[in-house]
Amino acid sequence: MTLTFVPPAELDRIRRLDADPAARAACFADACRLNALYMIARTGSGHPGTTFSSLDVVSWLHLEVLGEGDRYFSSKGHDAPGLYAVLAALGRIDFELIHRLRRLDGLPGHPDVAATPEVVTSTGSLGMGVSKARGFVLADRLLGRAGRVYVLTGDGELQEGQFWESLQPTANRGLHEITVIVDRNEVQSDTWVSEVSDLGDLGTKAAAFGWAVAECDGHDLAALRDTLARLEGERRPRLVVAHTRKGAGVSFMEPAGRLPRSDTSLYGYHSGAPSPEEYERAVAEIRERLDGRLAALGAGPVELVEAEPQEHVSAGGGVRQQLVPVYGQALLEAAEREPRLVALDADLRYDCGLVDFRERFPERFFECGIAEQDMVSQAGTMALAGLLPVVHSFACFLSTRPNEQIYNNATERTRVIYVGSLAGLVPGGPGHSHQSVRDISALGSMPGMALIEPSSEAEVRAAVAWAVHEAPGPVYLRLVSVRWALPFEPPEVDELVPGRGTVLRTGADGLFVAAGPVMVGGAWHAADLLAREGLELGVVSLPWLRDVDGAWLAEVAGGAPIVTVDNHYLAGGQGDAVLAALAVAAPEAAARVTRIGVEEVPKSGENNETLHVHRLDGEGIAAQVRERVLARAAR
Amino acid sequence: MTLTFVPPAELDRIRRLDADPAARAACFADACRLNALYMIARTGSGHPGTTFSSLDVVSWLHLEVLGEGDRYFSSKGHDAPGLYAVLAALGRIDFELIHRLRRLDGLPGHPDVAATPEVVTSTGSLGMGVSKARGFVLADRLLGRAGRVYVLTGDGELQEGQFWESLQPTANRGLHEITVIVDRNEVQSDTWVSEVSDLGDLGTKAAAFGWAVAECDGHDLAALRDTLARLEGERRPRLVVAHTRKGAGVSFMEPAGRLPRSDTSLYGYHSGAPSPEEYERAVAEIRERLDGRLAALGAGPVELVEAEPQEHVSAGGGVRQQLVPVYGQALLEAAEREPRLVALDADLRYDCGLVDFRERFPERFFECGIAEQDMVSQAGTMALAGLLPVVHSFACFLSTRPNEQIYNNATERTRVIYVGSLAGLVPGGPGHSHQSVRDISALGSMPGMALIEPSSEAEVRAAVAWAVHEAPGPVYLRLVSVRWALPFEPPEVDELVPGRGTVLRTGADGLFVAAGPVMVGGAWHAADLLAREGLELGVVSLPWLRDVDGAWLAEVAGGAPIVTVDNHYLAGGQGDAVLAALAVAAPEAAARVTRIGVEEVPKSGENNETLHVHRLDGEGIAAQVRERVLARAAR
Repeated sequence: MTLTFVPPAELDRIRRLDADPAARAACFADACRLNALYMIARTGSGHPGTTFSSLDVVSWLHLEVLGEGDRYFSSKGHDAPGLYAVLAALGRIDFELIHRLRRLDGLPGHPDVAATPEVVTSTGSLGMGVSKARGFVLADRLLGRAGRVYVLTGDGELQEGQFWESLQPTANRGLHEITVIVDRNEVQSDTWVSEVSDLGDLGTKAAAFGWAVAECDGHDLAALRDTLARLEGERRPRLVVAHTRKGAGVSFMEPAGRLPRSDTSLYGYHSGAPSPEEYERAVAEIRERLDGRLAALGAGPVELVEAEPQEHVSAGGGVRQQLVPVYGQALLEAAEREPRLVALDADLRYDCGLVDFRERFPERFFECGIAEQDMVSQAGTMALAGLLPVVHSFACFLSTRPNEQIYNNATERTRVIYVGSLAGLVPGGPGHSHQSVRDISALGSMPGMALIEPSSEAEVRAAVAWAVHEAPGPVYLRLVSVRWALPFEPPEVDELVPGRGTVLRTGADGLFVAAGPVMVGGAWHAADLLAREGLELGVVSLPWLRDVDGAWLAEVAGGAPIVTVDNHYLAGGQGDAVLAALAVAAPEAAARVTRIGVEEVPKSGENNETLHVHRLDGEGIAAQVRERVLARAAR
Repeated sequence: MTLTFVPPAELDRIRRLDADPAARAACFADACRLNALYMIARTGSGHPGTTFSSLDVVSWLHLEVLGEGDRYFSSKGHDAPGLYAVLAALGRIDFELIHRLRRLDGLPGHPDVAATPEVVTSTGSLGMGVSKARGFVLADRLLGRAGRVYVLTGDGELQEGQFWESLQPTANRGLHEITVIVDRNEVQSDTWVSEVSDLGDLGTKAAAFGWAVAECDGHDLAALRDTLARLEGERRPRLVVAHTRKGAGVSFMEPAGRLPRSDTSLYGYHSGAPSPEEYERAVAEIRERLDGRLAALGAGPVELVEAEPQEHVSAGGGVRQQLVPVYGQALLEAAEREPRLVALDADLRYDCGLVDFRERFPERFFECGIAEQDMVSQAGTMALAGLLPVVHSFACFLSTRPNEQIYNNATERTRVIYVGSLAGLVPGGPGHSHQSVRDISALGSMPGMALIEPSSEAEVRAAVAWAVHEAPGPVYLRLVSVRWALPFEPPEVDELVPGRGTVLRTGADGLFVAAGPVMVGGAWHAADLLAREGLELGVVSLPWLRDVDGAWLAEVAGGAPIVTVDNHYLAGGQGDAVLAALAVAAPEAAARVTRIGVEEVPKSGENNETLHVHRLDGEGIAAQVRERVLARAAR
């Protein structure tokens, strides 16, 4: 696949065309579409659908609206490739960064104020946009600064309670400096917003909260200009519903006529990258339209530059594990046996492995939309009413957004199973809003809750069986989503034994303890590396993240140093749980524990480079053992 | 003060009056007012204002509306004394329980499904009501059961985003079995809802979310009857705005004409108990009205019974510490030096010690209402804009509801100070929704965040100074709110030294490590008890809840056993942090750590009885040391 992009000189030429600003901005937006698509195709992931739906609006704001002291950010954040393309085109970030989307020291998968100049706040956790805008405006007013804040939001995102929580106080304070533009592309992660959790009459709702509301076609920049102009002088905060098309500008990515209006439909271009064939078709279509638009303005066609190919770090071989699909099948089997089991989902049916469950048990599947608090509280009363609810989202969101709601349920002594996928450092592409490395800590003191993380497909099956059929209380099941190759053949697992794990290899010089395929695989690799130096370390896959059988573990270690490897911040991870269990059951073994884990905010990058920079790949783990365990033993 | 209550026979007589149901229910509600007031006065705490505003509605529902299969609960939950009075009057809970509000094995401060029959779900964390109702109805539909769900909500509570998050999906599913009654008493914790964070046009807003909406006088039960009747047959979920008066039925508790319409007003009867004089006036007023109502129905006056006096466990003497007011003064002083400091509050201005700050710096004080997520996200961008935001709520809410928002801020590498009061097991009265014993865990893996809990007024001053003027990153300041007597004279503290604490006493047989006045005081008391047995244990007040200087602590311990005492669940508390720090800096000391803390869901009770049942008073701590430390040493 040959990748091409629009170079700075061409972008400059388009920006400087002597033409109607709306027509010029439409050309600029298409040029940025080409570059955003290039970035996504080059790195192999991103969110093309929303990047394209919002790019006309984002282009217009940056070309014609934003001035000194003004701020712009996207609340949803996953349209970042579009923003980066615009900022690069305007020379506000180093143009060379477009070659490094979702790469280490490049452009993070979601905007990160600590990583990228011109990004004004970090987003990627949904629903925070209006609150963030208010903080800026209130601070500016207090500090005597002028400035407007333009916030782009998604429409699926508006299912989050925080959005509605933030509207009324913003209106009450008359913060007219704020303009929210809703990228109303009508499709969220899985499918049509109306099929997931319909928003009702958005304009009426926002107006009822005291906002000045207007609507327009978000791809008609003259209309957008006029709409924004009509809101000038308003003393209320302003909300524009910009009607857009997901994937706009690439016909096969646009859902109309292609995505059936059904809750079983799945939209194909929310996240991920196009195939080579799709990439070429998309480039051809955008280019043809852009050239036509340029010609209409009397300008020549766009000239693209061929990119150097991307270097990818090789993932290495091994036994591929795909935990989420296996989870989905195991849940289906458990549901056949357990008629009380129901599944709840927060617009991640596909990513959480629930497509088949929805097909097989439509009446036992509850799509809740992006409304995790609402989902968890209703799961609580479903459990009180006699059901066994299994609640799904990404680990980063599920463990935090409804944290108080999970505790409320736990104090009711019912059984609810929480399944958090996308756990851990990788995939590293999306960035730290999605890299869930504090879910164990956030849920670690839920009374009566078992926290489990399987390392292999076999352990997933055993974990689901235990959670559904055996667990005495609530369960948190932590799942790595990324397909991962284990450097060994994972053993069969008949059943989980509470507190205990599986001894994968033995060694007299130490014992690695870890959960999940990424860290168990990394520990195995580290053991291989250390074995070359004559050191024999064993590896235990320990799926219990909190309640560990310390006596068993001490016996397995047999007096050797214990090295815990956490796919989580060190504080509050499995290492702390191992330490605590040993302190009770085998205090002398507690003195031989070294904890390895995530020690700083996760970096966005390719999986192997992210693990490497955090020193949590095999080499990094081995190096930490040399520095911290062996050095200590030598003291 | 002589306390009186309406006995079961009198309640029966009123219930069975041959009269218009609305008039009869008004009498019943007044009788329940007398008993709710009795319960609150007897135990010395509760929420009289909202108990009284909702009691007419609650009485009507229980007398005339609820049938087989129907459920009722209060989303706000702090009106529990009214509900208990009604349930006791109807014989649905043991009448004798009215003598045991907020006492061990009595009636918890907020409804607890695990503690009280007839309570259908645990509440006290705001905004969850509609979500919970939906879970019940969806489960009932799936299980083929009929039944309606009546939910009472507050109005201040509607500032929570979850309420709005839950409305649209409930309407989309046409869950007409749900009727929400908003107890629109217009006053929240601090003052008028309109002054804290105005709700706008509630009816219009709910209707815009697809609900069938009606309004009525919530004290006119004939009107309530007619309003509910008008909504019969609706296929949409139903919301009734019941206009009520906070403290209704006790004139001096009603705000109209007494509470100025100003954001500096403070309503006096949201929580707490009446003075003896107020109690007598209130009883006289309710009784006179009730007797008049009874006479109008041709019935004789109510006969009250005098109660046996309440036994209170003595709190013991010592040096009283009141951390929150001292905190408020320290913040004020810090704000004089640091002009960038601003304070944000979530309708707990009084309880968080911010009354003087609001007076002194009105333009630097931001009242956010009961909207913690919105508050925290705006604090994040205020910090990005150059301010130093100090964010306040109760620890149980602040650490959990905006958990993802706090993380989002932390990843931006700004400085925000979070101050959570009402930390720990006591006060035990409000029950586990308010007893914050997992905030350290919930915040324990926030990158770069310092977690601090002072034990004395002197440490509060030092902690505020450190947090405002020295801290390199975000800070969580954990504050015990209850006035607490230390059994020793706390030393002066010039400044906090990161990771280190104050050695309060020494002893060769062990070292207690704790934070906060309750546990430091308990440890001291335990040390006294053990000293009588010839064992000398030292006590360290260690304000650092996560980043502990292990080398320093090991040196202080000097080879003796270390006993951590946590006002928090064992998992994820300070004990885990001590263990982790020692495992790195002094592994042999890690083998000598015993962690004591909360091991089950906190019980609601008087402070000393709650600490006692959790074995975290002096006796309990001493007993645990005998069982766990000394027994181990003897092995």
